[in-house]
Amino acid sequence: QPDWAATDPEMNAFIDDLMGQMTLQEKIGQLTLLTSDWESTGPTMRDTYQADIRAGRVGSIFNAYTADYTRQLQELAVEGTRLKIPLLFGYDVIHGHRTIFPISLGEAASWDMDAIERSARVSAAEASSEGIHWTFSPMVDIARDARWGRISEGAGEDVYLGSQVARARVRGYQGDDLGAVDTVLATAKHFAAYGAAQAGRDYHTVDISERTLRDVYLPPFKAAVDEGVATFMTSFNEYNGVPASGSRYLLTDVLRDQWGFDGFVVTDYTSINEMIPHGYSRDLQQAGEQALNAGVDMDMQGAVFMEHLKQSIDAGTASQADIDQAVRRILEMKYRLGLFEDPYRYSDNARQDATLYKPEFLEAARDVARKSMVLLKNEGNTLPLVAGAKNIALIGPLADSKADMIGSWAAAGDRQTRPVTILEGMRQRAGEGTRINYVKGASYEFASSGSTDGFAEAVAAAEQADVVVAVMGEKWDMTGEAASRTALDLPGNQQALLERLVATGKPVVLVVLSGRPNSIGWADDNVEAILHAWYPGTMGGHAVADVLFGDYNPSGKLPVTFPLTVGQEPLHYDMKNTGRPYSADNPQQKYLSRYLNTPNDPLYRFGYGLSYTNFSYSPVTLSNPTLSANGSLTASATITNTGDRAGAEVVQMYVRDLVGSVTRPVQELKGFEKVILQPGESRTVSFRIEPKDLAFTRADMSHGWEPGEFNLWIAPSSGLEASAPVTFNLTE
Amino acid sequence: QPDWAATDPEMNAFIDDLMGQMTLQEKIGQLTLLTSDWESTGPTMRDTYQADIRAGRVGSIFNAYTADYTRQLQELAVEGTRLKIPLLFGYDVIHGHRTIFPISLGEAASWDMDAIERSARVSAAEASSEGIHWTFSPMVDIARDARWGRISEGAGEDVYLGSQVARARVRGYQGDDLGAVDTVLATAKHFAAYGAAQAGRDYHTVDISERTLRDVYLPPFKAAVDEGVATFMTSFNEYNGVPASGSRYLLTDVLRDQWGFDGFVVTDYTSINEMIPHGYSRDLQQAGEQALNAGVDMDMQGAVFMEHLKQSIDAGTASQADIDQAVRRILEMKYRLGLFEDPYRYSDNARQDATLYKPEFLEAARDVARKSMVLLKNEGNTLPLVAGAKNIALIGPLADSKADMIGSWAAAGDRQTRPVTILEGMRQRAGEGTRINYVKGASYEFASSGSTDGFAEAVAAAEQADVVVAVMGEKWDMTGEAASRTALDLPGNQQALLERLVATGKPVVLVVLSGRPNSIGWADDNVEAILHAWYPGTMGGHAVADVLFGDYNPSGKLPVTFPLTVGQEPLHYDMKNTGRPYSADNPQQKYLSRYLNTPNDPLYRFGYGLSYTNFSYSPVTLSNPTLSANGSLTASATITNTGDRAGAEVVQMYVRDLVGSVTRPVQELKGFEKVILQPGESRTVSFRIEPKDLAFTRADMSHGWEPGEFNLWIAPSSGLEASAPVTFNLTE
Repeated sequence: QPDWAATDPEMNAFIDDLMGQMTLQEKIGQLTLLTSDWESTGPTMRDTYQADIRAGRVGSIFNAYTADYTRQLQELAVEGTRLKIPLLFGYDVIHGHRTIFPISLGEAASWDMDAIERSARVSAAEASSEGIHWTFSPMVDIARDARWGRISEGAGEDVYLGSQVARARVRGYQGDDLGAVDTVLATAKHFAAYGAAQAGRDYHTVDISERTLRDVYLPPFKAAVDEGVATFMTSFNEYNGVPASGSRYLLTDVLRDQWGFDGFVVTDYTSINEMIPHGYSRDLQQAGEQALNAGVDMDMQGAVFMEHLKQSIDAGTASQADIDQAVRRILEMKYRLGLFEDPYRYSDNARQDATLYKPEFLEAARDVARKSMVLLKNEGNTLPLVAGAKNIALIGPLADSKADMIGSWAAAGDRQTRPVTILEGMRQRAGEGTRINYVKGASYEFASSGSTDGFAEAVAAAEQADVVVAVMGEKWDMTGEAASRTALDLPGNQQALLERLVATGKPVVLVVLSGRPNSIGWADDNVEAILHAWYPGTMGGHAVADVLFGDYNPSGKLPVTFPLTVGQEPLHYDMKNTGRPYSADNPQQKYLSRYLNTPNDPLYRFGYGLSYTNFSYSPVTLSNPTLSANGSLTASATITNTGDRAGAEVVQMYVRDLVGSVTRPVQELKGFEKVILQPGESRTVSFRIEPKDLAFTRADMSHGWEPGEFNLWIAPSSGLEASAPVTFNLTE
Repeated sequence: QPDWAATDPEMNAFIDDLMGQMTLQEKIGQLTLLTSDWESTGPTMRDTYQADIRAGRVGSIFNAYTADYTRQLQELAVEGTRLKIPLLFGYDVIHGHRTIFPISLGEAASWDMDAIERSARVSAAEASSEGIHWTFSPMVDIARDARWGRISEGAGEDVYLGSQVARARVRGYQGDDLGAVDTVLATAKHFAAYGAAQAGRDYHTVDISERTLRDVYLPPFKAAVDEGVATFMTSFNEYNGVPASGSRYLLTDVLRDQWGFDGFVVTDYTSINEMIPHGYSRDLQQAGEQALNAGVDMDMQGAVFMEHLKQSIDAGTASQADIDQAVRRILEMKYRLGLFEDPYRYSDNARQDATLYKPEFLEAARDVARKSMVLLKNEGNTLPLVAGAKNIALIGPLADSKADMIGSWAAAGDRQTRPVTILEGMRQRAGEGTRINYVKGASYEFASSGSTDGFAEAVAAAEQADVVVAVMGEKWDMTGEAASRTALDLPGNQQALLERLVATGKPVVLVVLSGRPNSIGWADDNVEAILHAWYPGTMGGHAVADVLFGDYNPSGKLPVTFPLTVGQEPLHYDMKNTGRPYSADNPQQKYLSRYLNTPNDPLYRFGYGLSYTNFSYSPVTLSNPTLSANGSLTASATITNTGDRAGAEVVQMYVRDLVGSVTRPVQELKGFEKVILQPGESRTVSFRIEPKDLAFTRADMSHGWEPGEFNLWIAPSSGLEASAPVTFNLTE
């Protein structure tokens, strides 16, 4: 139980008293969340929300911020309603509020939980200073399909890394005290299995086994509960034939009964209404009943509870007790935020002015951005750019685009003026003696495919340069919600231009800005260096310059597998071995699990990333070859910086359970540590393993471990060949 | 219960007596199936099988045929062993034995159950005349991913069509009497869900819900049981974490306890052994125990039972009763085949000579082949080729390739001399007055990509022609087992040549030979006509000529969805609606389930196919707007041939259950009828619907229907826009 869930007799008495005064309609109002008219992300928009506030028909508002505006709306609730219940203000603060950090997937690539927590903490400080109490973040959906646009918004494909990132984000947003004015309520979303959409198409049908739900998709949600997350958001997809907002299995059996979650559950945008097109509800009234009965506490934007729940109570098809339970959960959160003490305590102009865009926040954004970048290739130490590179051709549609720097879901982030572009960052860093000749050269718009507009100028610039830096990738809104693709290539005519640039014979550095893994195999074969920079945020241009010029030695590792081609998707490192595994030992053998035309292997593995220095790994040593039921063991390896500059390395520990009552993945990440090593320095990194770390959903659907042999790797990336495993035995 | 499963006291007494004499090792021998040294499809090959036969260590042999050779091996068993138990001879007779019919997927495209049954009957006649008792066919795996190579070997993506085809094939192979010497035992394979391999990669992990298993993957197997199929084969994949050959849930709970299957279960090739790489078994002894305990009766080629089961009995980790049960099931089949009466009754040289390649069999193969072909495009009635087309350029690597005509898994089919190529078929049909100028022009080999070898000659031929017939597609072994692809385009340099041919301005007819849906959107946009001919078999060249020259009016309809691009896979028509369905009404709306760069719609829908004539559909009439629990209703539409030549139309009936306790597909095929109509002729086609036809796996996992509204279409293809639905109400 988190601190905030501790029994509070004073709170209970206050809420008992308040609920004793509430009419059914006022109660239903507390279950209703509506958007202000600032923004919308779905099909329904109610412009009568101000009247609804005054009438007590709405208890929470989203897409409203600034101290002034939230105060103004709060006045409508507190002064305009009978019971003066304050509003709760929610907002999509996803990777920064005003100061925008790298997209969530990029942050995960840092494998730096302190940095990720710091990012969330800064976001909370900024958002709360503008009157926001609650962010619809973190998204903790595991994503194993690069086609899915929202892969950009999570922490990638891995259960363990995803769970750690979920915890760091919840800690960052909520801090130690929900009532502190510089923290916000976090939301674990989207519950559940949203990332498993068929063919990577957003909102599409999910069909997975319960075992995979439990072992892959649920653990980051459970981690968020363990970290004390205050709220949950349902997902748009169905699970086992039932839309998540109508799933009593997910919202009650798992979330409440098995996990003991004490906060409240909000739907995603109009997802109760969407149970009709899903074919699960005859009409809105039934949809509302199904959602309430399943365990939904708050209806986001659908106005289904608002307009139909009273009829259901009158008809006896919904339970007053369920409504009371939901109202109580929501009022408890308002109480814990201190809103009944002072409804305006978050809406403070002076704090707002002192908080937004604080220099230390901008510096944090720059720091997280460079920590998020992943060096994918660096042939002949092309990077960092040497001092002799006095003439740099900077080419590509993403090299000088403010709008793109902050990616999608950038909340209240400024897309026009604040973001530092890569051109700006590089020019500032390079100084007077270096010429940076910028040519856009190509376009990422799909429609530009086939066009050679701008190529001539770009090629001319390249021909005159010492080195070409091509900044290519996807437009900011090609990932995120409702932004799925069936191809993973560089969109538009970028690939064609890249080929022309390579043809000049000049060294080419490719900087990729994107929210998903792209199939950049040609680039990997043909350019000298590749830096994946995600969408690096407000300070992104500086951060890219820090890395390109060597002021920061890149240390990011991929939180997702990069496929060779979209036809390999879904693709992830923690797959099963199958009965006929492909082996490099017999590449010509036909009857193996393989493709005719493409390797099984990805372009870049999960956990992969280079540095400007090199690290060597010693063999792994185990404290004991046997792990007993109540014991633990320690696995250690010594990592040495064998290069000539300091660098950080994400040391990763993987295990494989060789035989199980059900088949087990070929590797599972079970630990990691990011170490900073000076040139020549060695450090022994140790991981402690207990049997519970090796638990999974067994054949009988119980959760636990099984005795037997395990392989264990300590390695710089996933991959069975990344290093030799050691073996231990887990005994009863 | 099929006839053969009726109680037979005489048989029981015979087997009781025989089993009373058998040692444990002799019993285990009956559970063992080994290959002769003719062919192999997997990693293990035992060259000691003749010694094994003499020692009674093997009860069945596969990959052995001809009357002489099977007689010779049978003599080893009958004269060389103590108990003289005859061998059972199995073989992969998949789409013909000597006379090769179109690949199985192609046959399904005929939607002609009589034709499909006839194909299996011919196969049985030929195979049994060479001493074969048992075919490892039909494969009834639903396949919804065109990447998967074995999509070619089944009946496509649809549950209903797949079930009908499964029944037709079982009827065709087994006939009315297992003991008739011209029938063979059929095998329903691969049990189960083999087609759901992740990312379409053969043998890869399957992860689906139990609901999808039951509603999508199992029904064709249940249909095979209902038709009396004699044997089942396990699949290579896992289901719910357990390899199918170790799945007691599949092999006992479902197959025996729920379905009452009375035949025997054989594994796929070495699939018991493969439970070790799966990570399900520690060693072969455990694997054997797990397989036996799950419900496996016969071990194909793994020799696991042979080498380890006695130890398991000695150790008390396997049950003598399980072994006895399996032995009995196998001996029963040998008894029913009449082998105890006359072990050589199938090995009859005279019958063999009189049977193979009978003219009527070849004619049947030609007939099924033309019925299987699907006309995908025919702009301006480019087809049939008019008499005035005196100069035809016939181009492409598949236009004159005997080896490719018969596709993969062509059993004892001759790949060198017998197959009639398209060049041969067209030349013979066209006669003297027409010049058919054949140029290979391109290659389907992956390695030829980028090469323009042969293009010049092909383009020159095209320029001199009245019409170009390009025969392109995939090499015969690019589908089938272990033949998955990550791309669905025309392999090699065929697409590039096709573009050159189109650029000549001559009308281009594309004939596609392939075992999977290919992403031929460019062709659809740019050539005049497209005929999909699958791999049409021994008589394929004549059949293609029949269609191209208009001697046969094409009537096939696609049994699988053809995607626009591989990035849409898995793709099938019977998807769920989702909560945010894309609608053509609001193409610019963002927050819908769609891709940024590609439509959701496929290139060609399931059920689609053109004719040289046209058909119109009347609105649907219902006998009653309400269907009661014990009643039925009839849906009718009148189909009219509005063109000027006779043709056959596959009239399809789809339903949608609008609201369910779980979400339901947007359409489900529930009936079809192939009607032949003369020019101007009308026919009213009626479908009877009972509540049981509308059953599915409900929320509580029970199988049954639910009351409510249904949409119903009678239409020329799947697709919500193919025609307007009518609505009926199913009442309690």
